Amino acid sequence: MSLPLAGISVLDLTQIYNGPYAAFLLVQAGAEVVKVEPPGGEHLRRRAAGGFALPFASLNGGKRSVRLDLKQARGRDVLRDLAMHADVLVENFAPGVMDRLGLGAEALQKLNPRLVYACSSGFGSEGPYRDYPAMDLTVQAMAGYMGITGFADTPPTKCGPAVADFLAGAHLYGAVVTALLERERTGVARRVEVSMLETAYFPLLSALSMVKPGQDADSVRVGNRHSGLSLAPYSVYPCADGFIAIITSNEAQWQGLCRALEMTELLDDPRSRTVKDRCANMDWMDATVAERTIHFTKQALFEKLLAERVPSGPVRTLTEVMHDPHLHATGGLRWQEHPEFGRLPIPSGPLHFSGVEPPQAPPTGKLGAETREVLREKLGLDAAAMDALAADGVI
Amino acid sequence: MSLPLAGISVLDLTQIYNGPYAAFLLVQAGAEVVKVEPPGGEHLRRRAAGGFALPFASLNGGKRSVRLDLKQARGRDVLRDLAMHADVLVENFAPGVMDRLGLGAEALQKLNPRLVYACSSGFGSEGPYRDYPAMDLTVQAMAGYMGITGFADTPPTKCGPAVADFLAGAHLYGAVVTALLERERTGVARRVEVSMLETAYFPLLSALSMVKPGQDADSVRVGNRHSGLSLAPYSVYPCADGFIAIITSNEAQWQGLCRALEMTELLDDPRSRTVKDRCANMDWMDATVAERTIHFTKQALFEKLLAERVPSGPVRTLTEVMHDPHLHATGGLRWQEHPEFGRLPIPSGPLHFSGVEPPQAPPTGKLGAETREVLREKLGLDAAAMDALAADGVI
Repeated sequence: MSLPLAGISVLDLTQIYNGPYAAFLLVQAGAEVVKVEPPGGEHLRRRAAGGFALPFASLNGGKRSVRLDLKQARGRDVLRDLAMHADVLVENFAPGVMDRLGLGAEALQKLNPRLVYACSSGFGSEGPYRDYPAMDLTVQAMAGYMGITGFADTPPTKCGPAVADFLAGAHLYGAVVTALLERERTGVARRVEVSMLETAYFPLLSALSMVKPGQDADSVRVGNRHSGLSLAPYSVYPCADGFIAIITSNEAQWQGLCRALEMTELLDDPRSRTVKDRCANMDWMDATVAERTIHFTKQALFEKLLAERVPSGPVRTLTEVMHDPHLHATGGLRWQEHPEFGRLPIPSGPLHFSGVEPPQAPPTGKLGAETREVLREKLGLDAAAMDALAADGVI
Repeated sequence: MSLPLAGISVLDLTQIYNGPYAAFLLVQAGAEVVKVEPPGGEHLRRRAAGGFALPFASLNGGKRSVRLDLKQARGRDVLRDLAMHADVLVENFAPGVMDRLGLGAEALQKLNPRLVYACSSGFGSEGPYRDYPAMDLTVQAMAGYMGITGFADTPPTKCGPAVADFLAGAHLYGAVVTALLERERTGVARRVEVSMLETAYFPLLSALSMVKPGQDADSVRVGNRHSGLSLAPYSVYPCADGFIAIITSNEAQWQGLCRALEMTELLDDPRSRTVKDRCANMDWMDATVAERTIHFTKQALFEKLLAERVPSGPVRTLTEVMHDPHLHATGGLRWQEHPEFGRLPIPSGPLHFSGVEPPQAPPTGKLGAETREVLREKLGLDAAAMDALAADGVI
């Protein structure tokens, strides 16, 4: 059985995380992806050359690399020719860049009405913020993430992972596939678009639920506590070798926690008898739990809490995640001996389709390694024509 | 022009954020979604009744609500009949729940081979963590998010937004649409699946790039600084009325920042001449920038930095995000007078398809408001048959 997107051909003009992640998901679902890179290579490839290899190697395996100078007219001609033979073009330049190159959706879809044109940017191609700079950090600031991350006595704090970039990339994939489905059903190919700000909005909803309709409210930073401060114990607690997150969202879980930590006397303590009591005495409650958790390793306590059906999770270091036994058992991560970068944990696509294994993409190759192969195969260019393009630095 | 998923019929058995967000995206792309809820209503609906209305109202508009007791054999019969008439069933129960009810992918696809069966859970239906409890907080702990969020002198810190839930939901939508596309092309309908842990992995990549191949490294919490501590100024700085995030990733941006803050003498200061100097003196550098930024409002400084092409973003409160002029200008957010909950900012789907406006879903209705309409329309049940089901609490 082949992968679901077998036979779909994608031109990938993306860089860094947002667009490349969408193209990664396309590769992992079976599409044939050609990564078109500027003469110096995609930004993340250049960072990889500087020693930070994992992001580039993780997101770009299985894409064929074509080096192409879009600043030259002949480079743009080659791109137009490639677009004639593609099902999808995906890009995450700043809004307007592709139009100024004469390579926007309108121009390309005139040449190829079956081309799905997909783009992603910080704020979208319309509206007052359209031309604002957008990096994961600045979008996290403007989307309200920082205001609700951290503690009452720390400044607003960024989420460590690049969540704004990858949320947009995951949505961009969904938009591409939706447009392909519609094209299959109606013959119409659309331009589809997502923005980091809009896709970042939705995860705020749990915190926004605390904002009363018609009222204003400043962002409150509760550290690791429940965002409404209406559950306790609910936080991250110290262990002998790290930390563990623990949630009690009902009385059965509270009782289970008391049994696991051998503090069942608290079930009758007026300070902790009901969830209301425990929230009213939250500092004392958290300190009391922490006095107990510190005597366990995070894994030992996690297992005790599992047995008592109390939701918890050991706080993992990056190294522990790279070696996560579950991710390696299910194929979510696989070790790869990369010819350039050494041994790396490479992720598979997280969309699982019954009946097929997630593909194991080959290691990323050199910039432009497949330029001539792709131009010969797609455009029928011969060696002389390609030599001429190469002589002028077009490819 | 109709929406891309017009005519696609979805049975939505999901709850809270992950699954309901995927079904929200399906509604916003034009699918017809029937939300099947237990007799007490979906968990988030119950929370809405308790006063926390925004998440439920935001994610469930435009879904028809069917109240159905799957703990009763006749309730399961109704569900099977509904599945015969659906293109997609989506659920985010714990792994195994639907199988134990006799409603798993295998059973339902035997009845309806064209049914795409989609599910999402914390850790997936295979592997050692399969049955671990999964809430956004515990997945953030286990996925490594907390270890890289916060400051060196704070405990590992949760990301305030429920990013693990919504990342999974966005991917689940992509998986559903991919399977629908494949069904359209080949006639084969798959079971598709995503897990919170796997989808949460990818945003770690920027931090993971600092982990050297073959080496182990503890998670480092850098607060708001660059995760590799190799750029400065790069942080969140105080303003007269809040905070602003500022990034300088090259010398032009550093020079622009010095002009905006009227501190061009630092361009020749040996402590800040090169990025290496600035990183070596990072505490002094950040303090020096903060002494200047505190005299501006965040909006005034943002505009000055825009003019100098320095990436920055004002740190927004939740209230500011709810009222964001860009989101309201582009239709990303729209005010809704909700008959039950009052005036609420309701988001539109973040996937934009050229030629059609994002639909404005009607306000969420009551639990089971469309039960009889759906059962009559899909299954042809008459009033007497439905009265009998209602009498026994099946619907």
